[in-house]
Amino acid sequence: MSLLVTGSMGIDTLETPHGRAVDVLGGSAVHFAFGAGIYTRVRLVGVVGDDFPAAMRDVLASGNIDLAGLETRKGSRTFRWSGKYTPDMNDRETLDVQLNVLAEDAPRVPAAFADSSVLFLANTHPALQRQMRAAVPGAKLTVCDTMDLWITGQRDELVKTLAEVDGLIINDGEARQLTGCGNLIEAGEAILRLGPRFTVIKKGEHGSLLLTGTSVTALPAFPTRQVKDPTGAGDSFAGGMLGFLASAGKYDDAALRRALVHGTVVASFTIEDFSVNRIRSVTRAEVDQRARQFTEMLRIE
Amino acid sequence: MSLLVTGSMGIDTLETPHGRAVDVLGGSAVHFAFGAGIYTRVRLVGVVGDDFPAAMRDVLASGNIDLAGLETRKGSRTFRWSGKYTPDMNDRETLDVQLNVLAEDAPRVPAAFADSSVLFLANTHPALQRQMRAAVPGAKLTVCDTMDLWITGQRDELVKTLAEVDGLIINDGEARQLTGCGNLIEAGEAILRLGPRFTVIKKGEHGSLLLTGTSVTALPAFPTRQVKDPTGAGDSFAGGMLGFLASAGKYDDAALRRALVHGTVVASFTIEDFSVNRIRSVTRAEVDQRARQFTEMLRIE
Repeated sequence: MSLLVTGSMGIDTLETPHGRAVDVLGGSAVHFAFGAGIYTRVRLVGVVGDDFPAAMRDVLASGNIDLAGLETRKGSRTFRWSGKYTPDMNDRETLDVQLNVLAEDAPRVPAAFADSSVLFLANTHPALQRQMRAAVPGAKLTVCDTMDLWITGQRDELVKTLAEVDGLIINDGEARQLTGCGNLIEAGEAILRLGPRFTVIKKGEHGSLLLTGTSVTALPAFPTRQVKDPTGAGDSFAGGMLGFLASAGKYDDAALRRALVHGTVVASFTIEDFSVNRIRSVTRAEVDQRARQFTEMLRIE
Repeated sequence: MSLLVTGSMGIDTLETPHGRAVDVLGGSAVHFAFGAGIYTRVRLVGVVGDDFPAAMRDVLASGNIDLAGLETRKGSRTFRWSGKYTPDMNDRETLDVQLNVLAEDAPRVPAAFADSSVLFLANTHPALQRQMRAAVPGAKLTVCDTMDLWITGQRDELVKTLAEVDGLIINDGEARQLTGCGNLIEAGEAILRLGPRFTVIKKGEHGSLLLTGTSVTALPAFPTRQVKDPTGAGDSFAGGMLGFLASAGKYDDAALRRALVHGTVVASFTIEDFSVNRIRSVTRAEVDQRARQFTEMLRIE
C-alpha cells in the first residue's frame, strides 16, 4: 500500500550529553520517512528553502523515499531548530526556532500521490492537516500528530481535524493537555471520543500506550544502553508503525499491536546516533530481529 | 516455602489528589506482608510501640500473616510518617517523620522463624539487614531493599550487605544514585557486579526492569485508571514477587520473570485504595486473573 507523509523538513543543531551536532538533517517528515522507508517506499511532501544543502538532498535520495513531492522554494530559507537536552535526555530546551519557509504556503501534494492509501499528517496547523487530507481522497488510513501550540491556540481547528482521522499519535504531555486527564488511559479514552478509532500515547523511554475501542496495550520501550540523541524518536516511531501497517495492508487491532512493536523498535535504532545517521542504514531484517527479541522478552509463560 | 519479612511498621497520614487518610496502617513490612500473603503465609518480624492501636493489630491478624515476630515495646512509640503526593502522584513530599521505636534496638527473629527459606529485608540500616540475615542461616533466597539515606550515608555497610544477598529490589532514582549510572540497564549491571544474582528496578507507573546475569526484562505497569494512593506500591510489588517465588519454590530466570508479573499485578491492586484497604481482601484467583490479562496484553504474535 502506498504511504504518504507530510510534515516539516529542517536543519537541526543540538546538544546531548553525548555530543553536539551542528546543521544536521531533521524534521518530522524526514525522521518519519526513514523509519517508514524500512518497510515500504514513502512519498514525502515537504518544502525547503534554496539554502537546503545538496548533501542533505543526497541523504534523502539515498533512502527508500519518493522525492517528487519535495519542493525547493526559491528565495526562501529552510526551517531551523536548535535545542539542548537535559542530562537524563528525558527533556529538552528549545534554544532557537526559525520557521522560515514553514510560515509560508504549504507544499502541494503531487497529482501522482493523490491515490495514496496510508497518510501520515505530521505535526502542523490542524487546518492545513485537513487540507492535506482532502488532497488524498482515497486514503484508507489517515493518522496525525499534533503539538501544544495547536492544542492551546487552535483547539477548535484541531477538534475538527481529529473528527476526520483514523488515528492520533501523540506524546504523554500533549495527551494530558488535550484532554485535561492526568491518567493516560482516561486521556486515551477521551481522545477516542473526539473521533479517532485508535490513539497511541508515546512516553519516550517509558514506552507507549495503544488504545482502540476494544483494547488497551501498554508496552515498555526497547531496553537499550545506547542512547545518543532522542531527536526524531517519536516521528520515526510513527514511521515504523505506519510503514509496517502499509506493508501489511491491514489495520485491525492485531495489526495495530504488531505495528506498535515495530514503532518501538524503529525508535530504538533512531536514538543510537545523531540525526538519521543510524536509522538510514537499518534493514528490515534488523528490525524484524529486534522485534522478535522484544516480543520474546514480553512473552511470559 | 516459608517466607519471612523484616521491615518497618507504622502509622501513616497522607494526602493524595483523591483524598486524605489520617493515622492509617503503613510501613514497608506491612505492605509487603499483605502482598505476599496472597500467595503464602508470611512471617512478619517488626516492632511497634504500646500506642499501636488494637484495631490495626486486628487488621494484621486478619491477614495471612504469622505475628509471632511482632514485638510491642512498652514505653515506646510507633513509627509515624506523614506525606503529600503531587497532583500526578509520581512524587511525594514527606511532611513529617517520627522514627520513634525504629531508632531503638531491632526486633528479634523468633527461634521458630530461623528455618525460613525466603527472606525479604525491607529498607533499614544495612548492618541491621546483615544481622537479620544471620538470624536466618538456612535462607535459600535473600532479597533486600534500600534507600537514599543508606546509599549516601552508609555506603560501605550497604556494599557489604549487597555482597550477601541474592537480589536487590530498588526504585529507579535509588538505582541511579547507588551506581552513578543514568541509564537503568547500566545501573542494573553495576548492581549485579556488587553481588546480587538479580535486581529489579521499579519505575512506579512506568513499570519495572529485571536484570539477571543472562537476561533483561522490561515490563510496563498494569494499565489502570484506578489510582487512589501509591503508598506501599513498591513494598507490595516486592511482596507479590517473593510471595509468588516462595509458593513456586523456584528461583530461576523463568520463575523470576513470572514473579515480576505478579509483583506488577499486586501493586496494581494496592494503589486502588488507601493503606491496605484494597490489598487485604485480594484473592489468589483475582491476581491470577489479572496476571493472565497482563501477559495476554504483552503477547504479540
